[in-house]
Amino acid sequence: MARTAAALVIGNEILSGKVQDANTATLARELRALGVELTRVVVIPDEVSLIAAEVNALRHAHDLVFTSGGVGPTHDDVTVEGIARALGRRVVRSPEVEALLREHYGARCTEGHLRMADVVEGTELYSGADPRWPTMVLGNIFVLPGVPEIYRYKLEGLRPRLRGADAPFVLRSVYTALDEGEIKPAIDAVVARFDDVSVGSYPRWRDPEYAVRVTFDGRDGARVREAADAFAALLPAGAVIRSE
Amino acid sequence: MARTAAALVIGNEILSGKVQDANTATLARELRALGVELTRVVVIPDEVSLIAAEVNALRHAHDLVFTSGGVGPTHDDVTVEGIARALGRRVVRSPEVEALLREHYGARCTEGHLRMADVVEGTELYSGADPRWPTMVLGNIFVLPGVPEIYRYKLEGLRPRLRGADAPFVLRSVYTALDEGEIKPAIDAVVARFDDVSVGSYPRWRDPEYAVRVTFDGRDGARVREAADAFAALLPAGAVIRSE
Repeated sequence: MARTAAALVIGNEILSGKVQDANTATLARELRALGVELTRVVVIPDEVSLIAAEVNALRHAHDLVFTSGGVGPTHDDVTVEGIARALGRRVVRSPEVEALLREHYGARCTEGHLRMADVVEGTELYSGADPRWPTMVLGNIFVLPGVPEIYRYKLEGLRPRLRGADAPFVLRSVYTALDEGEIKPAIDAVVARFDDVSVGSYPRWRDPEYAVRVTFDGRDGARVREAADAFAALLPAGAVIRSE
Repeated sequence: MARTAAALVIGNEILSGKVQDANTATLARELRALGVELTRVVVIPDEVSLIAAEVNALRHAHDLVFTSGGVGPTHDDVTVEGIARALGRRVVRSPEVEALLREHYGARCTEGHLRMADVVEGTELYSGADPRWPTMVLGNIFVLPGVPEIYRYKLEGLRPRLRGADAPFVLRSVYTALDEGEIKPAIDAVVARFDDVSVGSYPRWRDPEYAVRVTFDGRDGARVREAADAFAALLPAGAVIRSE
């Protein structure tokens, strides 16, 4: 049974529309390459009790949980406290993280900066390629920051840790000139024939290039390609703009 | 008590990273202007039982629920069926929507297109400014499509329906040259003094323009401006790059 994952996005900035979440797409793509299926994303405000409840719901229902946001030094950074409450543990200062922060900030280092050394008791600090910025891990919970560039950097650092026996997903796309109503019979035929390939259909609005992108996903690359080819072959001449 | 809303994003394309969700940011901004607080977003796969369970959880916990995606004619469009199951109702063909579809597609109209006329029994068809594309409404559930341009268009059409007595949110931002650890005392002072203003702090990664954006949100515009000004006044000279 392949692993599943959930993302918990902690951020008033997403819920108030100040910022558009980019981390979920980063996570989804990274996990597909590792053969892990992202099956749930939840976005909640920066509130300790909500974080605690959601962490507990997600960590029991999924193999892996990735939190995003709420790990800086300011008053609205309450992810560590939320996870501590979920696990029934205390928040303690990590001497290891404190040393890293003091080294990084030097003479500028404030008590504000050092607040980032507060971790859930029992936190594992996982250093991928870059020991300066270890990631907090609590069992199957991976605690990542909200800033997209750092999120991506730390997630890539987790690759050796996340790699398992799951076959990566393979994706093929066919772009059509016809609309969904018109290609539906061809899609249905392929869906019926390839139960190991997941077929998606994504229409565009007034796109001069194509009308619908039809995607074929699965862990067996040969079957995925076969399904995409079968679909294209069922369409009338000229209906396929391109495949990739 | 101001209204709260939840978004239910139905889409394998988001969970597999093929598409980055843009509709949540659109919804969040629209709701802020209407004085409604978006407090939860959930992204789930195109599966009837998951949709049904989630719709039921969200519609009882929030004043308004907005679904996004899964309303086209293809096999992966199962939102209507999911909502029907949540409400314990049947799916029926709407003569009104069927007539609109036949008019739009003309001679090209297929049974595939007409599948979009299948609605949950008892669905209200709300036409905003544009009666050609009514929105399906079921009590406090608003059913919107996944395609971002159409999502935005239909959401704007719902404005008269969604407008209430809630005071809209006002936002001010102060962009600083100092990092979060350095501005934390000033933020904490404002948080303590303005309990009716929500303060957020969003660092950038190697942005040449600024280090942190500090935001001030609330329903009382005068208080929001006062909080932003108080924060800026607490910073050393030259620390504020700009305010807006």
